[in-house]
Amino acid sequence: MSELRLNRATKEWIVVATERAKRPHQFLAKSAKERLPPFDPACPFCPGNESQTPPEVYILRKKGVGSPKQNWKIRVVTNKYPALRPRGKATEISGEFFKIAPGIGQHEVIIETPWHNKSIATLGLKQTEEICSVYQKRYQALEKDRRFKLIIIFRNHGASAGTSLKHPHSQVIALPLVPSSIRHLLEEAMRYYDDHGSCVFCDMMKEELLAKSRVVLNNPAFVGFHPFASRSPFETWIVPKKHNACFGNSSPQEIKLLAWALKAVLKKLHDKLGDPDYNLIVRTAPIKDAQEDYYHWYIQILPRLSIPAGFELGSGVYINTSLPEHTARFMRE
Amino acid sequence: MSELRLNRATKEWIVVATERAKRPHQFLAKSAKERLPPFDPACPFCPGNESQTPPEVYILRKKGVGSPKQNWKIRVVTNKYPALRPRGKATEISGEFFKIAPGIGQHEVIIETPWHNKSIATLGLKQTEEICSVYQKRYQALEKDRRFKLIIIFRNHGASAGTSLKHPHSQVIALPLVPSSIRHLLEEAMRYYDDHGSCVFCDMMKEELLAKSRVVLNNPAFVGFHPFASRSPFETWIVPKKHNACFGNSSPQEIKLLAWALKAVLKKLHDKLGDPDYNLIVRTAPIKDAQEDYYHWYIQILPRLSIPAGFELGSGVYINTSLPEHTARFMRE
Repeated sequence: MSELRLNRATKEWIVVATERAKRPHQFLAKSAKERLPPFDPACPFCPGNESQTPPEVYILRKKGVGSPKQNWKIRVVTNKYPALRPRGKATEISGEFFKIAPGIGQHEVIIETPWHNKSIATLGLKQTEEICSVYQKRYQALEKDRRFKLIIIFRNHGASAGTSLKHPHSQVIALPLVPSSIRHLLEEAMRYYDDHGSCVFCDMMKEELLAKSRVVLNNPAFVGFHPFASRSPFETWIVPKKHNACFGNSSPQEIKLLAWALKAVLKKLHDKLGDPDYNLIVRTAPIKDAQEDYYHWYIQILPRLSIPAGFELGSGVYINTSLPEHTARFMRE
Repeated sequence: MSELRLNRATKEWIVVATERAKRPHQFLAKSAKERLPPFDPACPFCPGNESQTPPEVYILRKKGVGSPKQNWKIRVVTNKYPALRPRGKATEISGEFFKIAPGIGQHEVIIETPWHNKSIATLGLKQTEEICSVYQKRYQALEKDRRFKLIIIFRNHGASAGTSLKHPHSQVIALPLVPSSIRHLLEEAMRYYDDHGSCVFCDMMKEELLAKSRVVLNNPAFVGFHPFASRSPFETWIVPKKHNACFGNSSPQEIKLLAWALKAVLKKLHDKLGDPDYNLIVRTAPIKDAQEDYYHWYIQILPRLSIPAGFELGSGVYINTSLPEHTARFMRE
């Protein structure tokens, strides 16, 4: 019989449909991915094509010979077709019934490596550390702009995860408001804190470590697990052990250990499931809530192994056709 | 420049990314759909294969000759692999930190026609009326079960909308609890009612009728429009003119006019966009809130013309690359 499981942090109920359950290996990505060349002359993110993107807002250079323009390890540029632009004053909402606000914000692309055919799963640990460090640098640069209220860092891997350019990259969007879904999340976390005197994310991490069965990674600073109430097969959370609402406030040592954790999780997914498409999201508190005791930043990885359909869209309840205990064991094996 | 638009009912902010904007005809479904035969001997929903599904919970027969077993217009059966089952007592939540409840509920499939290759867009109006009437009959049957708290009726059209069986069908899921996302929606509607003394959905419909530019349909009982803050291109809402929180309480005359509206909208989408995949959701109040003054049932149609990616998953803010004013005009032309 199926069961309903509650994610205590997001307050989402999930249906674990054991009668439809698939075994972990059945999620092996069906179609092998196209083999990419290490360099694609038509790719705007490849070395030599730097002029095809807007100018860098940040660049990490490598030492050595060659054209200084092409001598980079990571480039951050504003998105050529940005969803939001940092033009104008702080958000002013206008309109009577139909409320509108100017699209003020920032939309950046982090080109993670000169290699067209790499990804965090296949890049070296050192480069992954640099990527995580650049994530943080951009967070810290953008949080200073008083017009911005929330910064989302994310990575779309593969066509079904919504990416249009194949060259490995992440994105950063700074929003001029706190969306209602994030407000609801914070309210629920605050309510839990009132009731229990502790952060729900800290408690979840401790309980997952005690239960053991869903843990896929444990290093001195991070725990990785498939949540008890996972939305979809192989959903993975990477949670810092030390309470901290804001990703930007992580220590240099934590950033190093985050890179290690991220690479380990993504490499496992890549190797065991045949490089599935996924979305990766750095979920962090709104800028003003950076010091809160009740919220906790974490990374959510959502492999695109199932399609949310009318029921999920209409109810917010996800049907998961796998048991996180099984998928986590498969990852550990 | 982009703009942010607020959906007053769902309280979702949407980015209308005009710099990435596509013209309506660019959304024409790229790959032509496979031509289906009128009958597929391997399809469990086709006539003659009735024994391959669980027994009917409801059947609408046609008069005439032929085997009585195969003489049907619409069959409703329980899902062979149900997400939830109507076994056991009302939901009891157990567990300390990890909360769990038995998967009590109902999961039905409405086989909309014996024709394998039809859909509401291409079926006759009479058959669409019967389908809408069966939607309501199943709603009314399930709402009597005191264990159920919310009934979701939905239709997934096409592979990218999450359907696995091609034969035209809708689904009904009765849930034993009210999910938090629905609770939040009701709370926002209640707050609007407190502030304005009116239902936000009634007001939205009136404002859309006044603005005219996003209206795609107007009959004596229903208004169809592309919401001011549409999540995605060609999102369409069909809203009853008479205030009513509960779909199950619609009058027979309303059901007839709903069928007319639904067929008109889906046929237009089919003809003008090349039969795009979509999800259709009957959004109705939780059973206990059937009489509320602040909530209003409606149908939401979400064509799958864009992929929600990391940003949407992380923020709840959707980036829409079309203007609903443009897509609505395109539908009206």
